Amino acid sequence: MSFALTILGSSGALPAFGRFPSSQYLTIQNQHFLIDCGEGAQMQLMKYKIPVHKINRIFISHLHGDHYLGLMGLLFSMHLQKRVNDLYLHAPKGLDEIILLQLKYSKSTLSYTIRFHLFDPDQPTTLFENEAVSVETIPLLHKLPCAGFLFREKQKPFNLDKEKLLPSMKLQHLALLKTGSDVYDETGKLLYRNSDFTLPPAPSYSYAYCSDTAWNEKMIDQLKNIDLLYHEATFMEEERSKAIETKHSTTLDAARMAQAVHAGKLLIGHFSARYRDLEPLLIETKSMFANTALAIEGNTYTLPHEQNH
Amino acid sequence: MSFALTILGSSGALPAFGRFPSSQYLTIQNQHFLIDCGEGAQMQLMKYKIPVHKINRIFISHLHGDHYLGLMGLLFSMHLQKRVNDLYLHAPKGLDEIILLQLKYSKSTLSYTIRFHLFDPDQPTTLFENEAVSVETIPLLHKLPCAGFLFREKQKPFNLDKEKLLPSMKLQHLALLKTGSDVYDETGKLLYRNSDFTLPPAPSYSYAYCSDTAWNEKMIDQLKNIDLLYHEATFMEEERSKAIETKHSTTLDAARMAQAVHAGKLLIGHFSARYRDLEPLLIETKSMFANTALAIEGNTYTLPHEQNH
Repeated sequence: MSFALTILGSSGALPAFGRFPSSQYLTIQNQHFLIDCGEGAQMQLMKYKIPVHKINRIFISHLHGDHYLGLMGLLFSMHLQKRVNDLYLHAPKGLDEIILLQLKYSKSTLSYTIRFHLFDPDQPTTLFENEAVSVETIPLLHKLPCAGFLFREKQKPFNLDKEKLLPSMKLQHLALLKTGSDVYDETGKLLYRNSDFTLPPAPSYSYAYCSDTAWNEKMIDQLKNIDLLYHEATFMEEERSKAIETKHSTTLDAARMAQAVHAGKLLIGHFSARYRDLEPLLIETKSMFANTALAIEGNTYTLPHEQNH
Repeated sequence: MSFALTILGSSGALPAFGRFPSSQYLTIQNQHFLIDCGEGAQMQLMKYKIPVHKINRIFISHLHGDHYLGLMGLLFSMHLQKRVNDLYLHAPKGLDEIILLQLKYSKSTLSYTIRFHLFDPDQPTTLFENEAVSVETIPLLHKLPCAGFLFREKQKPFNLDKEKLLPSMKLQHLALLKTGSDVYDETGKLLYRNSDFTLPPAPSYSYAYCSDTAWNEKMIDQLKNIDLLYHEATFMEEERSKAIETKHSTTLDAARMAQAVHAGKLLIGHFSARYRDLEPLLIETKSMFANTALAIEGNTYTLPHEQNH
């Protein structure tokens, strides 16, 4: 699976019915990200046998406890496990101070370096980019400055059509064909037309994580045609006034957003402690957006969608 | 059960095999205490159906993460559950700063008041005392300043021997008899000799919690004749050099302490992540101190011992 999301926690602020607070593990082409890190995330990572040492980047959406209180424990455990690689921590300003204060009082010097990348959640910005993926913030509407995260795969290499390749081709020609270019000789003469020797690249996928937010029209443009949309749905529609008061969303807010951006699939989560049974939330959301699933702890959602299990 | 200890977490610094870090819930005569509060303690309190709203005092032994990282989440959850009563927090200096910083960044004003009682773990001191119980610190030997806690019941009321009470007795006479006094009339004449109308009080029990410590001879005097001793046993005896290096105890350190103080019963915990199976630790400890039990999450240990389940 080159694009896979595993839910570690999907509870709202108050953990209930054995559900843990927000945390997700995302892999894209051998890159390993942690998205939010609610209390107990390290236990969940262990429970689902996730290779913690491979996680090199952590993204924290905002400084409500249910989204970051598992981080300090995870940082200490990485130290106890003798982590060496730098850890990149993308978070709103303040989390650095919270972490450093606790390191001070525990008289700890970690076995690895934390690279803080602090951002302003209200300003859209690109947090990270390499040859395979980019990560942007999504400004959300919440009681605290809060950002979602948009993960986009870049265009993948063209696939070489092995049956058509010629014995005369050199490695550098193949490398050029993979980028989508035609190949010319030194004199500028066309040697190989790309379309004769390649098949289209595998599709590039995208995932948006919208942790805590009221209905937010402003993000529609940014999320157009997203393949997988995680949108919080703390409440059923009948609790709309509570949703407005706490700057959270209802099931139908999430569904409406999925509709508006033509999402491939919608995942809902951040469930209020008032709901033991989540089925009614799923049914209500599906009434407006059929391809919806509950974010269930331990479940992995892959792109393309058909491999989901 | 008027004296009952429930284990919420018994893992060492690195949670493993589903074991949570240190936390215990202690009730003594309708008083409800939380002792240490490792990550996930609030989930454990919920799992074991403990009435969180009744907990009015929390004791934190030291500022290593595995002993306090569950506190912030618990404090937020108490707020979400609309707690009103003051919460007394006995902790080493620094925890106040850690909590206040996180409240600041989450822009939270709690629904209740935290009363910080900060103490110096290296100085023996009485943290709390009322008519039923006293709580003292036990200076421990660890990498950080660290205190255990000694809970002692005060002498309980004498029991009235109902068969012997006289119709002429007034309520104030009964109250005096319960304190252990004889009853005199206004002229100083003996009306009722205490021993004629009472049975001895129920025994008063004591519990000592020694969270993280190397072998510490200095605490023997303080813990003499303790009824229930929790003593960490992070390692088996074969890891003695590791125990010395990390200022922790082995099974036999714990057993030796239980012997030295003539403990009624020994509980061991704070198990290293290297031990999946805890039975060998129990066997090794029992080889020196027979009345030993493992601190197993969800188990409740009561005083007197025979009611244990």
